[in-house]
Amino acid sequence: MLTKGKIKSLQNLKLKKERDKRGIFLVEGEKSVVEVLKSDFFIEEVFATSDFIETYKDLLNAKDRRAAKVEEGELEAVGSFEHNTSAVAVVKQKKRDVIPEIKTGITLVLDDIRDPGNLGTILRIADWYGIKQIIASIGSVDMYNNKAIAASMGSFTRIPIFYTNLFTFLKQNKLPVFGAYLDGKNVYKTTFPKDGILLIGNESNGISGELKEFVKEKITISKVGNAESLNASVATGILLDNWIRSIV
Amino acid sequence: MLTKGKIKSLQNLKLKKERDKRGIFLVEGEKSVVEVLKSDFFIEEVFATSDFIETYKDLLNAKDRRAAKVEEGELEAVGSFEHNTSAVAVVKQKKRDVIPEIKTGITLVLDDIRDPGNLGTILRIADWYGIKQIIASIGSVDMYNNKAIAASMGSFTRIPIFYTNLFTFLKQNKLPVFGAYLDGKNVYKTTFPKDGILLIGNESNGISGELKEFVKEKITISKVGNAESLNASVATGILLDNWIRSIV
Repeated sequence: MLTKGKIKSLQNLKLKKERDKRGIFLVEGEKSVVEVLKSDFFIEEVFATSDFIETYKDLLNAKDRRAAKVEEGELEAVGSFEHNTSAVAVVKQKKRDVIPEIKTGITLVLDDIRDPGNLGTILRIADWYGIKQIIASIGSVDMYNNKAIAASMGSFTRIPIFYTNLFTFLKQNKLPVFGAYLDGKNVYKTTFPKDGILLIGNESNGISGELKEFVKEKITISKVGNAESLNASVATGILLDNWIRSIV
Repeated sequence: MLTKGKIKSLQNLKLKKERDKRGIFLVEGEKSVVEVLKSDFFIEEVFATSDFIETYKDLLNAKDRRAAKVEEGELEAVGSFEHNTSAVAVVKQKKRDVIPEIKTGITLVLDDIRDPGNLGTILRIADWYGIKQIIASIGSVDMYNNKAIAASMGSFTRIPIFYTNLFTFLKQNKLPVFGAYLDGKNVYKTTFPKDGILLIGNESNGISGELKEFVKEKITISKVGNAESLNASVATGILLDNWIRSIV
């Protein structure tokens, strides 16, 4: 059983300040907890129903991790899921201060993505298309936000995000940058290279003006209807799909 | 100023039962309220800040609609937005009992999409790609759900959704049906027709078994990484993009 103090302490992990201070974050739900148990993230605590503990005992043993048994109702009080009937894990954040040198492949660069659902969905898309890493502006939403973790459906365990100043990053970058705009070249007519950067802008304001000088090609998703724009994660999925098509 | 009773009455519109009983729904935020003012939806009431009323006075006049002036804080109490600083509208639902005969173009068919954010995002995507209508299973989430309306960014005013029994609908349908599966033909190698149906399944369970007999071609988004699946709205965007590419 969870004490009131413990529930409060877990609920507080919804706040970035609290996560950063303690260097941990919360993972909720069967699928995500299983993925994090299979990953190389360090797990501090697991709270799970007897069903979950029985089903995943090998995975818990392999991680040398004993799960504290709780009831379904208790899990719902802790997290943000309306129906979490299986488990939550408290996981240590990875420190990612040094961006690796990027010479090959496609790298996704996010300029101030603010919605955690979008960020998590973008992680999942990046994972689907085999992207090795994501670079995000300092102002982008925290990848350890509980909604981002949930939307990523476990992909946060495979795709690292590095937060940095994008102007500085793009200034030293030598790979060609393709930027998502509403008035660029039709993506159907764009030839993409094997190695390059896809730059995605903020949900409301697009790509910052100061980054424009680094964009080699402005690209736009083909439009035949009337919507003014597409959701940032949907646009990322469509652009990556067009890119992958042209290089496989 | 809004009375307590009025606030409660507007808040209740988050519930489908309440929306259906009263035949109305709530539209929140500047962009969405402007779009609905420009549409042929019948608007029962508008509550807006003096800024909004001043900026859009011509639009309000054109719709012969007087907006009741309220303060920003009052709007936040009414709706689901954390920062609604402009307007909400109470709008009459459209009755869509009779599905038009569909002979040409691409029609999107949704089999039990349950997440309102996904449904709204799919409306926005359909609007971007010029889809004329969406057919959704009875079990799909209500398009007048406040989160669906918000995610559609105004596209709900342009793309009608018809709720019906999909087995019956697909049985009488003569257009070729392309179904989104995880083990179908690579979409990069698929040739799409000018006229046809794109069938999208439920977020967790995919397309119902009973609808499989109507699927002419099972299609799958090209995958090079490790995510098990993509979000339903992202998948819809990528598949429609591939379809449009092959016919324009």
